[in-house]
Amino acid sequence: MGGTNTAIGVVDARGTILCRNKIPTGNYATGEEYAKVLGATINKLIEQNDLKDKIKGIGMGAPDANMHTGVIEHAANIPWAKNKPVPMADLLTAETGLPCKLTNDANAAALGEKHYGSAKGMKDFMVITLGTGLGSGIVANGQLVVGHDGLAGELGHVRMVRQNGRVCGCGRTGCLEAYCSATGVARTAREFLETRPDESLLREIGDRPVTSKDVFEAAEKGDKIAKEIFEYTGRILGEAFADFIAFSSPEAIILFGGLAKSGDYLMKPIEKSMNENALSVFKGKTQLKLSELKDADAAILGASALVWEK
Amino acid sequence: MGGTNTAIGVVDARGTILCRNKIPTGNYATGEEYAKVLGATINKLIEQNDLKDKIKGIGMGAPDANMHTGVIEHAANIPWAKNKPVPMADLLTAETGLPCKLTNDANAAALGEKHYGSAKGMKDFMVITLGTGLGSGIVANGQLVVGHDGLAGELGHVRMVRQNGRVCGCGRTGCLEAYCSATGVARTAREFLETRPDESLLREIGDRPVTSKDVFEAAEKGDKIAKEIFEYTGRILGEAFADFIAFSSPEAIILFGGLAKSGDYLMKPIEKSMNENALSVFKGKTQLKLSELKDADAAILGASALVWEK
Repeated sequence: MGGTNTAIGVVDARGTILCRNKIPTGNYATGEEYAKVLGATINKLIEQNDLKDKIKGIGMGAPDANMHTGVIEHAANIPWAKNKPVPMADLLTAETGLPCKLTNDANAAALGEKHYGSAKGMKDFMVITLGTGLGSGIVANGQLVVGHDGLAGELGHVRMVRQNGRVCGCGRTGCLEAYCSATGVARTAREFLETRPDESLLREIGDRPVTSKDVFEAAEKGDKIAKEIFEYTGRILGEAFADFIAFSSPEAIILFGGLAKSGDYLMKPIEKSMNENALSVFKGKTQLKLSELKDADAAILGASALVWEK
Repeated sequence: MGGTNTAIGVVDARGTILCRNKIPTGNYATGEEYAKVLGATINKLIEQNDLKDKIKGIGMGAPDANMHTGVIEHAANIPWAKNKPVPMADLLTAETGLPCKLTNDANAAALGEKHYGSAKGMKDFMVITLGTGLGSGIVANGQLVVGHDGLAGELGHVRMVRQNGRVCGCGRTGCLEAYCSATGVARTAREFLETRPDESLLREIGDRPVTSKDVFEAAEKGDKIAKEIFEYTGRILGEAFADFIAFSSPEAIILFGGLAKSGDYLMKPIEKSMNENALSVFKGKTQLKLSELKDADAAILGASALVWEK
């Protein structure tokens, strides 16, 4: 479930998406109405594809989803979920007769990597999603770390700058997400362009805000400031990853999302900074990887993987 | 196993220590010699107390112990383990015929709290040991988080000060342990006394270094600088705990060790800072607790709890 659309797919144990559909996410008065439409769409998809009695369960990735309770808790960007918790798992079970599990997008991405992607066979790893914000899905001992309240894994909000840090969307300052996300990169670009005299292709973009894609394209053309923006971003990410490694010593940290497509411009500085900053006992042990899931499929595969978890 | 002595005890399922003994830790040429003496002492303890065939296994807490492999990896303070890894679990099994599991002291402390102490019934919590250094034992989904290499949980070495931080024993700078440990408190005391003109009972201590116990005693007598030393320490701990909560959302953070005995002088500032710094969704949810294990028994109980883990 994204802010605009909800993508639906039937997935087999090998990670093949057998059929799919989608509905808009936002156009409903209540969560109950949304669940009715979603449930009916799922039922139809199953029926049309002769899959009745072959479905093990429903997995759903949604913002602010609590894995323990199956409730969407105050999702700020979804009109019908903004002001009250919606017991989505129960609602969908009522509509479909199928067991349903919910988790947030980053946790779903982690399960997707575990069952079908870069983390196959790993028991200790984490997925960092670098999109508009920075999300995280942590797996330890083969299980998602969701904490006592079902909401753990908010690594976008560890503090990287404790004094005069950037204001974050969460209302605090200095959070990792305020530096290392598509939005963070755009802010870094603005800061660099405002405070430095160097020439840069990024100055030619005009009135609209610089995006992380612009920065990538400028770097590809050899732009110095663009490359330094990635170096700055990668250095901070590497420092954060060194702390994450001290916490859970993952076999791999897997990057997912738009910003992760910046390739070596971002990966090299992350790797350098991560290994420079790691405690010596951990140096060089944690792999830095890119997601192996296709963008268009990742959300569906990740959510479906919830069903394989006990 | 401490740097000086190794305490041995037989523990029943309720956490009663039925009998105990101890041997020196350091006086051996090799790890094999140590294991022979330790094994013989264990065998004798079992025999003398009519406990043969009643022992389920051996759990051992040791510095730099790898839980996956049962190996003590380069323990800097133990002469016979300093320069080469010692496969202690295998050696002890050979001497006693009993299965043996190893982990580091902080992980053992976490298991002790889980089975016999403040964390009974909890599936997500962490123990922070505030001794000479700062150690951590993290439990998520009811299991110790030891990472892919068996060495996770080095929270004393997350970076709290990224610029001009104190040099840490690990060779890096700005680590939590350099501020928030008995040693860290002593350094804070020195800094405060050197850079401030205020009167303080701590100035009367003379040539020896100020200890965290001195600071506690001065605080008890109303000393302003002593109280501020705890406030400074607690503020940094609270900031670190807010980040830990973003990671694993524990039901409780349990403090253990000498410095934790500073009571409200330390606990109040930690709690204030932790809740001020936590992401709003986590505010006020994580309990801050003191260990319920008696100092003298904690090491034995913690190590023995390893045997109950599958």
